Amino acid sequence: MRDTVVGYVEALEARDWDRVTELLAPDVVYELPQTGERITGREAYVRFNREYPGDWHLDVVEAYADETGGVVHLRWALDGEVGPAIAFFHFDVAGRIDRVTDYWPEPYEPPPGREHLVERY
Amino acid sequence: MRDTVVGYVEALEARDWDRVTELLAPDVVYELPQTGERITGREAYVRFNREYPGDWHLDVVEAYADETGGVVHLRWALDGEVGPAIAFFHFDVAGRIDRVTDYWPEPYEPPPGREHLVERY
Repeated sequence: MRDTVVGYVEALEARDWDRVTELLAPDVVYELPQTGERITGREAYVRFNREYPGDWHLDVVEAYADETGGVVHLRWALDGEVGPAIAFFHFDVAGRIDRVTDYWPEPYEPPPGREHLVERY
Repeated sequence: MRDTVVGYVEALEARDWDRVTELLAPDVVYELPQTGERITGREAYVRFNREYPGDWHLDVVEAYADETGGVVHLRWALDGEVGPAIAFFHFDVAGRIDRVTDYWPEPYEPPPGREHLVERY
């Protein structure tokens, strides 16, 4: 449900840890494929968010979902820096989030060979 | 529509350039936020895909969409390497893709301070 995934990000932004907890399944698994990090269980995952250092902020850019899961495309801000993030969510049969797959894409230099097709912005 | 975004990735994988072209609006804009590259127009964007070097393959992991746009979470394979990619799509009023925002998240080292909560996989 779109409300679940958007509401989850909004609850994080609001530091509403009761609401965050309510939206998560007890056995939720959080994965960061870029670092190969995994956090298992709601308690550790909420703590990870609570302890995340700095004055971070999250803004929803767009969101899509169905009854099985969904995604939020967001912009983060942290200590004067901004960037994109993408979180995929899976729901259990009760509609609670039981899996989160989180991406934090970083800038990189484009490979050569396509300058005739692209502009830089 | 989910069929549009999944069908688009499948048409790329099949090198079915007629189908790819059919799914795109003439004025489609393709952006790679990580490199700040932009391609404007269907002709240049199809050419970008046709010219993309190597024996690349794309597999849909999951997809979500509504009537305004959607997203595909995919796995790419190229010359023995594999990794994730995420493409967001926006549709024009005719249901054709008029904007693609493409992410290619790369591995990075996790910041210190959360070892008490995470395992590596």
